[in-house]
Amino acid sequence: MKYQHNFNPTISDEDIFEEIVIEKEDIGYYNLVHQDGSVFKKYAEGVKQKNIVVIGIGGSTLGTYAIYKFLKYSKNLSKKLYFLETTDPIDIKSKLENIELDDTLFIVISKSGTTIETISIFKYINSLIKCDKNNTLVITESDSKLSEYAKANEIMSFNIPKNVGGRFSVFSAVGLVPLAIVGIDIDQLLSGAKEMHDSFFSKTQTYERVLKKARFFVEYKNSFNINVVFSYSSRLEGFNKWYIQLWGESLGKIDINSTRQGLTPIGIIGPIDQHSFLQLIVEGRRDKTVTVIKVEDFDSNLVIPSVRLEGLEELDYIDGIEFSSLINEQADATIESINNLNDIPCDVISIDSVNEKSIAALMYEYELLTSVCAKFMYINAYDQPGVEAGKIILKQKLKK
Amino acid sequence: MKYQHNFNPTISDEDIFEEIVIEKEDIGYYNLVHQDGSVFKKYAEGVKQKNIVVIGIGGSTLGTYAIYKFLKYSKNLSKKLYFLETTDPIDIKSKLENIELDDTLFIVISKSGTTIETISIFKYINSLIKCDKNNTLVITESDSKLSEYAKANEIMSFNIPKNVGGRFSVFSAVGLVPLAIVGIDIDQLLSGAKEMHDSFFSKTQTYERVLKKARFFVEYKNSFNINVVFSYSSRLEGFNKWYIQLWGESLGKIDINSTRQGLTPIGIIGPIDQHSFLQLIVEGRRDKTVTVIKVEDFDSNLVIPSVRLEGLEELDYIDGIEFSSLINEQADATIESINNLNDIPCDVISIDSVNEKSIAALMYEYELLTSVCAKFMYINAYDQPGVEAGKIILKQKLKK
Repeated sequence: MKYQHNFNPTISDEDIFEEIVIEKEDIGYYNLVHQDGSVFKKYAEGVKQKNIVVIGIGGSTLGTYAIYKFLKYSKNLSKKLYFLETTDPIDIKSKLENIELDDTLFIVISKSGTTIETISIFKYINSLIKCDKNNTLVITESDSKLSEYAKANEIMSFNIPKNVGGRFSVFSAVGLVPLAIVGIDIDQLLSGAKEMHDSFFSKTQTYERVLKKARFFVEYKNSFNINVVFSYSSRLEGFNKWYIQLWGESLGKIDINSTRQGLTPIGIIGPIDQHSFLQLIVEGRRDKTVTVIKVEDFDSNLVIPSVRLEGLEELDYIDGIEFSSLINEQADATIESINNLNDIPCDVISIDSVNEKSIAALMYEYELLTSVCAKFMYINAYDQPGVEAGKIILKQKLKK
Repeated sequence: MKYQHNFNPTISDEDIFEEIVIEKEDIGYYNLVHQDGSVFKKYAEGVKQKNIVVIGIGGSTLGTYAIYKFLKYSKNLSKKLYFLETTDPIDIKSKLENIELDDTLFIVISKSGTTIETISIFKYINSLIKCDKNNTLVITESDSKLSEYAKANEIMSFNIPKNVGGRFSVFSAVGLVPLAIVGIDIDQLLSGAKEMHDSFFSKTQTYERVLKKARFFVEYKNSFNINVVFSYSSRLEGFNKWYIQLWGESLGKIDINSTRQGLTPIGIIGPIDQHSFLQLIVEGRRDKTVTVIKVEDFDSNLVIPSVRLEGLEELDYIDGIEFSSLINEQADATIESINNLNDIPCDVISIDSVNEKSIAALMYEYELLTSVCAKFMYINAYDQPGVEAGKIILKQKLKK
């Protein structure tokens, strides 16, 4: 028997890597890891206000929220961070009720500078308190209308580089400035991201992992059109939301063959969602991959005490177990039960601990993964043409 | 040309309805609307503590949280409600730090009575403060180990009927007791649910709507395996989570032909997720239905003021618009942009206002919808066999 074939992968890892290296010249997020954070830290040191209110939506808040939510109880933070990100009137009112406005710095963040939610809320704030150079900071593109506003009022502003998209902007001023102000170590954030950058571009572990994973996701996208991130810590709830935007908005695109692409992101939290979504994963249709994220060290010694509860003695076997062990054993039990089924693609990411480097490394790796998936799918990860139609319709409605 | 066929729907609306009527004899949630809430209200009146901490997970908390989150800023509530629902040590510690424990009622909720997360946390609480009949309430099945504990310690307890599943238990003591204690009108909740019940079982609007929708979801489940609920109010974030459990855990099942079924629930919030998930809906694969939920009346007069921001004059057209109008116009613009595409199944639910009847009606309708979908899919909506394997593995790990 003779045999010939050309069943090579349509695109090799090497080719993808070369495309990423070329793209890196134009797409700004890759190189944010090389920034010197001094200018942000210097500004942060001068902030006297106790409350920091970020006014923004989508890419202007999600990454910052992810990092803040992850770290806020584990770090001794000096200030409180709030986010005004929706036009829901009840949300705006209830949040502002709890904030002392005359001890607040307002950070208005909008890449385009004319985001309707952001400017609406900022206008409302202006009716409650005078916003000027003493209590306002602007983060936007250098030539936006919001930048003009800042200049006209001598308000300090930081730029969002034009080639850094909103959902890839967490390591620009968008994330670093508010995080530095509340006391998060942005050098460590940049360092964690840089480790992933270096490992990817030197083609070591991160490169291997990201290429393998992206190829799998894209090659099986028609069977497994849903990617579940199952994070075993409530501290990762913000990360999940950030991941959903990154994945959904970057990969939900029409490809070069005019074919609709899209991998649907779902973010769930363990152990809570063992009591919600896990049943669907285990017995439902095989349309999902599962990525479990574990935190190795919670830096907590909270223990289940040996308390005798009459009637409940059958649960005494949990006495003396640390909660951090319990949650990780719960994760492991879930992983084992999924792996025992043998037909659900599942991977596990263990991050070291609840610190800046860990979360930054995780987020930067997900940015890389998104970029690489987009290359395999022949789509542009960095635009979002699908949301424009709604914006135009809204403008017409409001101008009536 | 002659033609014969037997292409009738495999199962008629009438047949489904008959099955639901039969099921109603055994499945308890349907009839919770006929309860008299007096006994719950009487207990609630006697509660002196200012803080109410629910210790529970999954079906023991999600429905209560959904209603509380929806109403808490619109009602003048007398007490604060907290939820301890995860074994994440940082979550437990940070929540408890802000609660005055000696002015707290602890409500331990577990249907089985031996939920590991719930008992672990309750044991921990017991090491911080003496838990007895003065500050503890138990809600569980009548013959559970937790019920034994309550009896042994003369602690008040309410029963979860055996035929009411956790995720369908919001209108039992599970939801009604904590909600009544904090000052939510549970008669109005039951009344809102009862309206839907009556409309369904008298085969009027709710019947028409639920049957049509369920049939569509099930008949097109292989094309549209994902059901997105797009709620245009941050107050519905808890509802979204509750929906995800209800839908995922009830419909992710193996059917009578040993075929894996499952409709994947996704909950997103407008306008925030216009900047996150909408791109994927619009340009991604056609694997999603979209249900938009709007709140007609936010009972808010928060207005975008006519504040002049130099440089940003192009946005002056939003001046004078109420935020409640803006968010609803945003919803309408999204709906219009989706409908213009002509290939994304989309329906819109408008609830009246931010009150008890509205949220209860919405939740009861979703329970009915879930039951009807399960009938069309030939599955049991009320069990969750898929999560047992993980529980057994966990027990083995912990006993080591």
